[in-house]
Amino acid sequence: MLKLKIWKGDNIKLILFIAIFSCAAMSLGASGDEDLLQQAKQIFSPLPQVMTSEKNPVTPAKVKLGRILFYEPRISVDGTVSCARCHPIGLYAADGLKKSIGNNCKVNPRNAPTLLNAAGQISAHWIGNRADVEDQARQSVTGPPSFGMPSHEAVEAKLRGIPGYTELFKKAFPRESSPVTVDNFAKAVGAFERTLVTPSAFDSFLKGDVAALKEEEKRGLKTFMEAGCVMCHFGTYLGGQMYEKFGIFEPYWKYTRSEPIDEGRYAVTKNEADKYVFKVSVLRNVAKTAPYFHDGSVDKLEEAVWVMGKVQLNRDLTKEQVAEIVTFLKSLTGIIPEEALTIPLLPSTE
Amino acid sequence: MLKLKIWKGDNIKLILFIAIFSCAAMSLGASGDEDLLQQAKQIFSPLPQVMTSEKNPVTPAKVKLGRILFYEPRISVDGTVSCARCHPIGLYAADGLKKSIGNNCKVNPRNAPTLLNAAGQISAHWIGNRADVEDQARQSVTGPPSFGMPSHEAVEAKLRGIPGYTELFKKAFPRESSPVTVDNFAKAVGAFERTLVTPSAFDSFLKGDVAALKEEEKRGLKTFMEAGCVMCHFGTYLGGQMYEKFGIFEPYWKYTRSEPIDEGRYAVTKNEADKYVFKVSVLRNVAKTAPYFHDGSVDKLEEAVWVMGKVQLNRDLTKEQVAEIVTFLKSLTGIIPEEALTIPLLPSTE
Repeated sequence: MLKLKIWKGDNIKLILFIAIFSCAAMSLGASGDEDLLQQAKQIFSPLPQVMTSEKNPVTPAKVKLGRILFYEPRISVDGTVSCARCHPIGLYAADGLKKSIGNNCKVNPRNAPTLLNAAGQISAHWIGNRADVEDQARQSVTGPPSFGMPSHEAVEAKLRGIPGYTELFKKAFPRESSPVTVDNFAKAVGAFERTLVTPSAFDSFLKGDVAALKEEEKRGLKTFMEAGCVMCHFGTYLGGQMYEKFGIFEPYWKYTRSEPIDEGRYAVTKNEADKYVFKVSVLRNVAKTAPYFHDGSVDKLEEAVWVMGKVQLNRDLTKEQVAEIVTFLKSLTGIIPEEALTIPLLPSTE
Repeated sequence: MLKLKIWKGDNIKLILFIAIFSCAAMSLGASGDEDLLQQAKQIFSPLPQVMTSEKNPVTPAKVKLGRILFYEPRISVDGTVSCARCHPIGLYAADGLKKSIGNNCKVNPRNAPTLLNAAGQISAHWIGNRADVEDQARQSVTGPPSFGMPSHEAVEAKLRGIPGYTELFKKAFPRESSPVTVDNFAKAVGAFERTLVTPSAFDSFLKGDVAALKEEEKRGLKTFMEAGCVMCHFGTYLGGQMYEKFGIFEPYWKYTRSEPIDEGRYAVTKNEADKYVFKVSVLRNVAKTAPYFHDGSVDKLEEAVWVMGKVQLNRDLTKEQVAEIVTFLKSLTGIIPEEALTIPLLPSTE
């Protein structure tokens, strides 16, 4: 039954199965860096320069405006919430809290996922109620626990009350006569977020430089593949491409400190099969974005890896295996683009 | 009586009086850029490169650590407060709120003053209960409306719980065997803040480049001096060197939207003469740090200038005079050091 659920007609998974199978075979025979690379290339791919979107082409003017708006708290209901509040770049675009705290101390229902490499996922956030990073930005301004504004019109009034924005929006959306809108706020912020790509040693490896990963990282990669983590954490982002039940073999809350129990995607679809289903997390920069899981209920990466093995793969990973996987995961810590590490000056109200 | 209060044995003020007198005389006679410069040089001086301190020498290692700690929210009681929360550099190190909001939505008693050029003042904050920027950083970690931690020991435990800090503190305080302390947190943050110097067109002017200010800015400077604003807003920082009653001629709250009435420095000294006394604000970057006054009760710089004239100088400044002064004040918007506009990566808990 469980296996059927996992394999149901999913081509990606079939390919992964073959890849993992050959990977396991490899570990029995003569192995080498080149073999490992070939295996890895069947499962993963290096990061693009920018996470493009047909609906929202990334232009320099949009990115410039988006980077400013990312830091803009004056359009939130209490003047304290900007995108950067829950996604501070210096903390790898997550906030270190179990659950983010928004306007007027309202607690968000889930942990703030990092925005780094986030735009390449099938959707934004945890349960599939945000189509993409643009949709997330658009919804956040009126989200009760985030910016908390009463309406898009109210946000637009605040934006128009800061004179410097008029010109910036005009430059970013040159064909529009009245460009200072929440839709364009979302597009600009989204365009900025689409530049938040963090290439790491693992990308150099995937591009053919087998020496880019240290021996222990390569061992970790092999363990990561053989253990089956790649069943869900595959692709460019090592996650973010599918939804999966958290707790396939046992309820997740048996091993986390989750309180209350979150039913996940069920809240969106009301489909019984979506109970406890969440989007698979992107693992890039995972060593920098504790605490872990949708509710931040686990502090340490070692514990998170062990819990995953237990409830997703029915494996009681040994301390050594966990350590190997964590060593590999640390090689996914990437370099944040210089532009994203520069604080933009916000237009004044004068 | 009032005059006696203003003039009481204060040498700086006597010099200023002479300077303003000659300035007024100048305006009657043949005036020129060179005359204006000479007058200005008697009252103001250009910014230093760094705001040094004998007690806390500014070293690169301290600045590096301080810049990281400036963004560190994980040492606050609810994990949301860092120095940057109330002093975001992109908003010119103020937060745009009337009164800052700290941990657990606690409202600070007063407006967050900008940290730019702040270390050169006689004290930090508004009422003289913070000796300097180091003292402010030290007190903020246990300040109920700011970081809200129960004790210095609790802060130190949190700092020690983030492994990367050990090495950073060691490098910044190489002679200490156990350097991860709140005192050193304060010194490091203070050292970083001592680099937040923002030279502007006005500094170039003061250094002899009379063309650095536009004609209308020079007119504004003259009006600023002649109107008597320099009685309090003198020196390198155009303020920050003395305390003064807010409302010498009339209660300040007659013209602001202040609620409740703040008794200012009286809260510190319990001296009747200190009622409604505040530290004179630094005017550098003032056009970028709305809203104004200790309680953020005035939104617009024009209005703030007019209120100042009315209650401090008993002058009903004309619209034209206000506009001239505001034009000059805008020339005080300076360039934030590149290093301070770079987001540091925070050490992870892994």
